Amino acid sequence: MKAVRLHEYEMRPVVEEVPEPEATGPFDVVVRIGGAGLCRTDLHIVEGQWAEKSNVALPYTLGHENAGWVHAVGPAVEHLQPGDAVILHPLMTCGFCRACRAGDDVHCEASAFPGIDTDGGMAELIKTSARSVVKLAPGVEPASVAALADAGLTAYHAVKKAVPMLYPGSTCVVMGAGGLGHIGIQCLRAMSATRIVVLDRNEEALALTREWGADETVTVDGSHVDKVLEMTDGHGAEVVLDFVGEQGAEHDSWAMTRRAGSDFVIGYGGRVDIPTIDVISTERNVVGNLVGSYNDLVELMALAAAGRVEMLTHTYPLDAVNDAMDDLDAGRLRGRGILVPASAGG
Amino acid sequence: MKAVRLHEYEMRPVVEEVPEPEATGPFDVVVRIGGAGLCRTDLHIVEGQWAEKSNVALPYTLGHENAGWVHAVGPAVEHLQPGDAVILHPLMTCGFCRACRAGDDVHCEASAFPGIDTDGGMAELIKTSARSVVKLAPGVEPASVAALADAGLTAYHAVKKAVPMLYPGSTCVVMGAGGLGHIGIQCLRAMSATRIVVLDRNEEALALTREWGADETVTVDGSHVDKVLEMTDGHGAEVVLDFVGEQGAEHDSWAMTRRAGSDFVIGYGGRVDIPTIDVISTERNVVGNLVGSYNDLVELMALAAAGRVEMLTHTYPLDAVNDAMDDLDAGRLRGRGILVPASAGG
Amino acid sequence: MKAVRLHEYEMRPVVEEVPEPEATGPFDVVVRIGGAGLCRTDLHIVEGQWAEKSNVALPYTLGHENAGWVHAVGPAVEHLQPGDAVILHPLMTCGFCRACRAGDDVHCEASAFPGIDTDGGMAELIKTSARSVVKLAPGVEPASVAALADAGLTAYHAVKKAVPMLYPGSTCVVMGAGGLGHIGIQCLRAMSATRIVVLDRNEEALALTREWGADETVTVDGSHVDKVLEMTDGHGAEVVLDFVGEQGAEHDSWAMTRRAGSDFVIGYGGRVDIPTIDVISTERNVVGNLVGSYNDLVELMALAAAGRVEMLTHTYPLDAVNDAMDDLDAGRLRGRGILVPASAGG
Amino acid sequence: MKAVRLHEYEMRPVVEEVPEPEATGPFDVVVRIGGAGLCRTDLHIVEGQWAEKSNVALPYTLGHENAGWVHAVGPAVEHLQPGDAVILHPLMTCGFCRACRAGDDVHCEASAFPGIDTDGGMAELIKTSARSVVKLAPGVEPASVAALADAGLTAYHAVKKAVPMLYPGSTCVVMGAGGLGHIGIQCLRAMSATRIVVLDRNEEALALTREWGADETVTVDGSHVDKVLEMTDGHGAEVVLDFVGEQGAEHDSWAMTRRAGSDFVIGYGGRVDIPTIDVISTERNVVGNLVGSYNDLVELMALAAAGRVEMLTHTYPLDAVNDAMDDLDAGRLRGRGILVPASAGG
Repeated sequence: MKAVRLHEYEMRPVVEEVPEPEATGPFDVVVRIGGAGLCRTDLHIVEGQWAEKSNVALPYTLGHENAGWVHAVGPAVEHLQPGDAVILHPLMTCGFCRACRAGDDVHCEASAFPGIDTDGGMAELIKTSARSVVKLAPGVEPASVAALADAGLTAYHAVKKAVPMLYPGSTCVVMGAGGLGHIGIQCLRAMSATRIVVLDRNEEALALTREWGADETVTVDGSHVDKVLEMTDGHGAEVVLDFVGEQGAEHDSWAMTRRAGSDFVIGYGGRVDIPTIDVISTERNVVGNLVGSYNDLVELMALAAAGRVEMLTHTYPLDAVNDAMDDLDAGRLRGRGILVPASAGG
Repeated sequence: MKAVRLHEYEMRPVVEEVPEPEATGPFDVVVRIGGAGLCRTDLHIVEGQWAEKSNVALPYTLGHENAGWVHAVGPAVEHLQPGDAVILHPLMTCGFCRACRAGDDVHCEASAFPGIDTDGGMAELIKTSARSVVKLAPGVEPASVAALADAGLTAYHAVKKAVPMLYPGSTCVVMGAGGLGHIGIQCLRAMSATRIVVLDRNEEALALTREWGADETVTVDGSHVDKVLEMTDGHGAEVVLDFVGEQGAEHDSWAMTRRAGSDFVIGYGGRVDIPTIDVISTERNVVGNLVGSYNDLVELMALAAAGRVEMLTHTYPLDAVNDAMDDLDAGRLRGRGILVPASAGG
Repeated sequence: MKAVRLHEYEMRPVVEEVPEPEATGPFDVVVRIGGAGLCRTDLHIVEGQWAEKSNVALPYTLGHENAGWVHAVGPAVEHLQPGDAVILHPLMTCGFCRACRAGDDVHCEASAFPGIDTDGGMAELIKTSARSVVKLAPGVEPASVAALADAGLTAYHAVKKAVPMLYPGSTCVVMGAGGLGHIGIQCLRAMSATRIVVLDRNEEALALTREWGADETVTVDGSHVDKVLEMTDGHGAEVVLDFVGEQGAEHDSWAMTRRAGSDFVIGYGGRVDIPTIDVISTERNVVGNLVGSYNDLVELMALAAAGRVEMLTHTYPLDAVNDAMDDLDAGRLRGRGILVPASAGG
Repeated sequence: MKAVRLHEYEMRPVVEEVPEPEATGPFDVVVRIGGAGLCRTDLHIVEGQWAEKSNVALPYTLGHENAGWVHAVGPAVEHLQPGDAVILHPLMTCGFCRACRAGDDVHCEASAFPGIDTDGGMAELIKTSARSVVKLAPGVEPASVAALADAGLTAYHAVKKAVPMLYPGSTCVVMGAGGLGHIGIQCLRAMSATRIVVLDRNEEALALTREWGADETVTVDGSHVDKVLEMTDGHGAEVVLDFVGEQGAEHDSWAMTRRAGSDFVIGYGGRVDIPTIDVISTERNVVGNLVGSYNDLVELMALAAAGRVEMLTHTYPLDAVNDAMDDLDAGRLRGRGILVPASAGG
């Protein structure tokens, strides 16, 4: 089958023939890819930024946001059938540790991460585990949701943790109106009545967020922190969802967080750097956020099936992976790029 | 001033002149009534059903759903000014007990209940405590929200407690599409992405609920429990909000509650009657619900100010209280009846 | 191997030779029994009370509270080794459904229950699933903890749910100083600073509870509800743990529950029967309780390993199962009866 | 009356005659001091470190940890009587804002802080508000609990927030075996079954903590982080309570926090400084902690009355305030210094 393979860091991946994976283990599932999301992390992988962290042996297949149809199942799998439309949780988890049993499977003590540390889904087929497969509701196309598998799931997870603090009358600041912000705002609107205030440098992006459910927008121009404080009677927001995490956003987010409120770090690149006296005298929290759990992904798919969360996507044939990477790198890509193998019509 | 006074049980109240209340105590607040909600409880009071429970001395002034404008404040009140548009929390609470401090002020150990056990708001003025006064956002008319002060607040409170169980993909059954159900459905829609399934005998009422945010409706016709089980793959709903609580609804609600789910009792009249083996073998809960707290009322007003919760009302001059009671009693009243004193334009 | 087999309802089980189970499935685990708890449910099974509910085909092996050592594992099991000392969660669960992933595995949509609906642990060996096996800390003897696998786990689970409501200064009433109450009181003491008030008919049993951590005891003699109300300034307890659930305890428990408090139903036999007006006017809850989850069992084993929870046990050789049943039936058994196969030294 | 007055920064306070406060306002309460705690903050105040922050007008009376007996009450106070033994919550709060009503009164939007920004309790009498007064259980001496009013309350509050994460089998690291750590460890032991691991430089202090309930101790010697990781199978602790917050403890605390765990900042002086990638890739949290609420103080007094929390104190006559300050400054003071006015037997 065809697969997008990375042979060397700092060299673009190539599309080449590789053997098809087989469902040999009892709970193996092989999925025919309907769409594989391309994201900035893929560019970073190619650049070698993840080499040490993932320790993956080259060459291997990229692609960590995958959806498609069940192709084959291992002998112990009873709840999935070939042909089922599915999306894949990004991690393969053990199912035995405390975290897996407690709804925190992203903290599984023995997980693998296809597309990062093992073969991913930019291919005609991918092998995963039965524990990672979420069935899609009738009418939901795999390619239309693939990009929710990792980026969207991260946004959903942070919002789900924040919602209990976001009573009607509260304010939630969303830093960044990009891809994660897009999903985050829709999730906030679907699951809370909080006032959503979105900040971004790009006024065009801000204008769009009102259609997604934002109540107010503020341009990041140096006076934005003061504006948010003014909008909140000098207090700041109960929750700040920082989808940026660098270039000053990480400091501004803390500054816009109300006493007893929480600053959710989701984007990364910068540093949290705060005097402990500021942490304690205002009793604010810094909340870490990783990708969501399997059950979170099921919930996000329920939002997608109900039309409450939508994603802008642009599809490319699998063979055009480097065109897609060029477009992403050059900022020409509107919405998320989705690679579709010829076998799925791409 | 004019007030609606009950002189004798089983006799209709009369509109008569009484002395104006004064803000003599340090935290007293006298409010000029803009609207006083009329509800079925007022009919029950007249019938004497509350006589023993409230132990109120006759005559007294009815009216437990009140909104208007601050008229005068006691010497220690600093955060309210004459002219402020306000709605009143139904209870006057002590502010010192654990419950008052912990957000459970409806369980205050020393509360009074105007319109039930002391003079209420069907009058030109009412005396309450500074602790019970919620300021309205600019543009919110007291008469338009008065009926949210008790009935609406009860619905909001139950929904707020239920929302943490109502993840996307879950089902919430709403028993009863009447006044509380109306508010409950709007609150559910504003604060969750759960599937809302509404049950009622009245098909016309059910049809309206779709505009308020219901996803599906089921006519109460004897097969309704089976239909809900079928809609939930045989499991039942994570939460049932029983706004009826009598005439069989209290049994059906339990029967439609999923394993590990919760049956919220809000309406009353019947009995909860369940074998303990059924309680334990399915680990279901029966959840009691009273009117909401002061903070709940502030939150509900935020929903109203944002246009997320609306109430159908029909206004009557204060003098027409018995016409309003006749209309309510005869089922001729669409929406909630609101009494408006002449001094407020009624 | 030898096993305690039930051939016919209303007839005592027999100890006979049966084939040894084998770890044929990928995640099968065969455990050599070190101790199998005997409980009142076993008597009920023999009497046929569970025949319709379990629908088990006779003959089959009894025993639903099991601990021992891993004997053999299926080919996909990596985290267990023959010889590991283990206790078994009473259910075999699927690991794929929402409940299994969310820490509610007792609500698994596809579970089996050894000793109830499939072969249990009153035998030399039992076959279970890798998902049900909890490793014991060094020094913990399987026979000493076996009876915690079901009865103890139920008590622990209820206490764990109650603890967040039991702030210092609160009161928790424990109805019933029997086996479950014994574990419940120890868990309450280990995990909270609430005032523990224990009620029972048996004064000798009450006297013992003070050693387990009870603060006060009340004899069930007709004046007990009034006494508890008096001890709580007329309010009742924040939580009542009703380990009896019949013979009036189910009514008394509700009557001793404070406004906004919770009545935990754990024992069964009677009916919850309450006017809905009482449920709503006091905002009390009836909370269902089933056996605990796998993670709950791990936590209970941590309490046992730390010496915070202990159980009185009396061991019998496996062959003496009917002596043990006689002793239990006649009330001669102090503590829990544990059957120990000859292969484990019994 | 006599009072400890600060006339000038960097000069020791003097004991002098001042007019007695009077209960003139409706909810004023004047309390006869039984004991006023002396803490390091008092030294910092004298040094002028709080001058800008508190903006207090000199001279004024020190003392922010106060207990005694009600002396006089304002005309609207009904639930307190002269002679009642009481401890004072450190803040005077408004009772009207959302925070005051929601159990977060330390985030009151209009509070005052006796001993910091208004006259405190190192005197014969102090004026406070009825909202700040906690009645003591019979037999609890004001002087024995005064120091719990601020320092102890801070430790209790942090522990209360941490307990829901501290299931049996978890580990809680306590950084610092000083005054706050002492209270924190006792509270942890009373309210959880977590494994308590205490770290300090001082081995003598560590030895004492085992009597308070610590399970294990680690000397801060450069290898302590590695030791804690080793004790937790390389994972770290579910919760770290950092009572130090400076001199490296703030970094070590984060390093000892497990994936998905929480680092509670309680002490201060240093900086939280962490790459955002570390925050998100492990989903750890930094949790701010301020002094506890009024209800927290009631709960802490319940622990004290039950003998579950004890404090070492050394009493001085009020006139000897500067001896006490010398002892504290020189490290000669074992336990907390309590100033007792002659009128209370000091």
